[in-house]
Amino acid sequence: MRDVAIIGVGDTKFGELWDLSFREIGIEAGLKAIEDSGITGQQIDALFVGNMSAGKFIEQEHVAPLVADYSGLSPRHIPTFRIESAGACGAAALACAHMSVASGIYNIVVVGGAEKMTDVGDTQAAEILSATADQEWESVFGATIASLFAMMARRHMHTYGTTREQLAAVAVKNHKNGSLNPIAQYRKEITPEMVLGAPPVAEPLGLFDCAPLSDGAATVVLCPLDMAKRFTDTPVKIAGYGQSSDTLALHDRRDICTMDATVIAAKKAFHTAKLAPEDIQLAEVHDNFTITELIAIEDLGFFKKGEGGPSTEDGRTALNSDISVNTSGGLKARGQPVGATGLAQVVEVVRQLRGECDKRQVDGAEIGLTHNIGGTGASAVVHILRRVN
Amino acid sequence: MRDVAIIGVGDTKFGELWDLSFREIGIEAGLKAIEDSGITGQQIDALFVGNMSAGKFIEQEHVAPLVADYSGLSPRHIPTFRIESAGACGAAALACAHMSVASGIYNIVVVGGAEKMTDVGDTQAAEILSATADQEWESVFGATIASLFAMMARRHMHTYGTTREQLAAVAVKNHKNGSLNPIAQYRKEITPEMVLGAPPVAEPLGLFDCAPLSDGAATVVLCPLDMAKRFTDTPVKIAGYGQSSDTLALHDRRDICTMDATVIAAKKAFHTAKLAPEDIQLAEVHDNFTITELIAIEDLGFFKKGEGGPSTEDGRTALNSDISVNTSGGLKARGQPVGATGLAQVVEVVRQLRGECDKRQVDGAEIGLTHNIGGTGASAVVHILRRVN
Repeated sequence: MRDVAIIGVGDTKFGELWDLSFREIGIEAGLKAIEDSGITGQQIDALFVGNMSAGKFIEQEHVAPLVADYSGLSPRHIPTFRIESAGACGAAALACAHMSVASGIYNIVVVGGAEKMTDVGDTQAAEILSATADQEWESVFGATIASLFAMMARRHMHTYGTTREQLAAVAVKNHKNGSLNPIAQYRKEITPEMVLGAPPVAEPLGLFDCAPLSDGAATVVLCPLDMAKRFTDTPVKIAGYGQSSDTLALHDRRDICTMDATVIAAKKAFHTAKLAPEDIQLAEVHDNFTITELIAIEDLGFFKKGEGGPSTEDGRTALNSDISVNTSGGLKARGQPVGATGLAQVVEVVRQLRGECDKRQVDGAEIGLTHNIGGTGASAVVHILRRVN
Repeated sequence: MRDVAIIGVGDTKFGELWDLSFREIGIEAGLKAIEDSGITGQQIDALFVGNMSAGKFIEQEHVAPLVADYSGLSPRHIPTFRIESAGACGAAALACAHMSVASGIYNIVVVGGAEKMTDVGDTQAAEILSATADQEWESVFGATIASLFAMMARRHMHTYGTTREQLAAVAVKNHKNGSLNPIAQYRKEITPEMVLGAPPVAEPLGLFDCAPLSDGAATVVLCPLDMAKRFTDTPVKIAGYGQSSDTLALHDRRDICTMDATVIAAKKAFHTAKLAPEDIQLAEVHDNFTITELIAIEDLGFFKKGEGGPSTEDGRTALNSDISVNTSGGLKARGQPVGATGLAQVVEVVRQLRGECDKRQVDGAEIGLTHNIGGTGASAVVHILRRVN
């Protein structure tokens, strides 16, 4: 098996990009990544696209050849793949792309994630998102994604004593990080009082506990590690990978305070990277809701079960603390174009490992982790990225 | 790179399966393939699912963990992936699964394709299918998939003198083959007169020139070739693989009588297999419309450009002739549950190479090919399968 490196990254601003179409954001992120990597279009062997629901948001399936086509690659007739895994599309697409290079079947591969969510109304968007839960046993009875995560939050508070203020601390931290990220959707700092006083979405979660609906795209370029130095002085190795699944329906889980898919994906990723949680300096973890980040930092092994809330409140996940979590602002403040989020996480970690993150730079960053989930945790993907010196 | 073998296959009947849900057909095909391969659920490392539009047909995204969950695999938390490439979902899923085994990341992998299309009305189904063409430049103006293929047919008739009778010969042959396949959707033979006299769908294509809407699933099990003999006496090697893309919109193509994506995918597949078109004894080619099969058998190199029609009319693609094309009945008679078709092709070829096809058996079958396209040919995937003696 060949080692694989990331040699280029690119992305768009996340937000309500009403003047840009799906194909335009896909192209923008892709061309930036290609330019960043120093490759030409002539060298691309394959394209993988992470996307959740273009069929419903923009009435367009078959988006992988579409992006290749509108990027000017149609004369090259490269193979294209779309990968869907609900919120974990981006990381699952990276996993498939990684395998394609590791196998020797392809050499230089572009992996992009994109979603255009704001061309439909909020109610319709919530319905589209709820199709990632179990349609026959959850969504059809009116359970929204927010309501399912609210149940997890309620149970976590009951079992571990997690407080409303600790949930709020996640949002406050991620907005603070987002304020330092020029391409974040939300660049305003918020206070705990603002989070606690916001209108409820699904109690105990309020408006500021929820990541937004967004448009946006993020792209990375891969090649075999032993070719990487031809293109860049700062390749980043995919040092660890783990992926796992769970029941689609929340009520079938062993314990809704833990995502077993995350626990298992993380174990596999640490095993393949020959590293442990304490080796990780920075992590982009899935924070579609504040509770999700608390559960994630526990399940990934950064904190013991039940200690995610107090640790966050104590600042142990802030920038340049014990572990810098969601330096980009996370889904919460960087934005949440679903198919793009997993790759936006990777883009952020790569930029951190290259030392390009200015005011939000993690000092001496060498090893970072990304964690991307789908639905209420029926899919989880963990990657560990390491700077190559 | 490790060689990869198919060690088990399974499928459902194709048709209007109103008493079975999406998850039930997925499980049925999966369990049959697992039983056929001699593995246990405990040995499965990953699941890949080919599916086009479950988000629209059954309001359910995130179908890969759903299938694992309802197959009883949730306690094993295996990684799951959904691959979408319009009509080529099944073959694209096989390609990703192949890479995952070839790379050494996974060993025993299940690849299933499924679609449940008949729970919506015909008009809605046609709209869902048209989302695989270019929404902004084709579908929004009312172009259906049938109308786009009708244009290809008209141009092929104009340029090469292909006749209406030659198109009909495709349908007659595939229904004849389907009549010999116990799990085909249509098991009735039809006459050229029936095809020519059928109501028009998009002229020159009539009702019998079009594959049906179907429900169904098909699954295969992969492992490294050097492990295959532990499970089966009759492994089938994935000897060749090629995949390619093209412009999503038909009007942007160089020539609408040829699918360049097929031509390039076939060249790559023959190159990797170290074989030529004349080595292929049987082929399952994409025949969502009769014209598609004629274009395919030319683009794959079995016949010269323009000779697909006369060759079919002369019986050179019939069972046990020059090359046996669509022995299963093809999409036309075996049925067309979109996400499953590419894997149903593979299931048929594997059964032929094992000599299990009874009245439709190709004599001495050793090498077969599958050809699966998406949209109007913006995606094409070719696999070459070979019996291991």
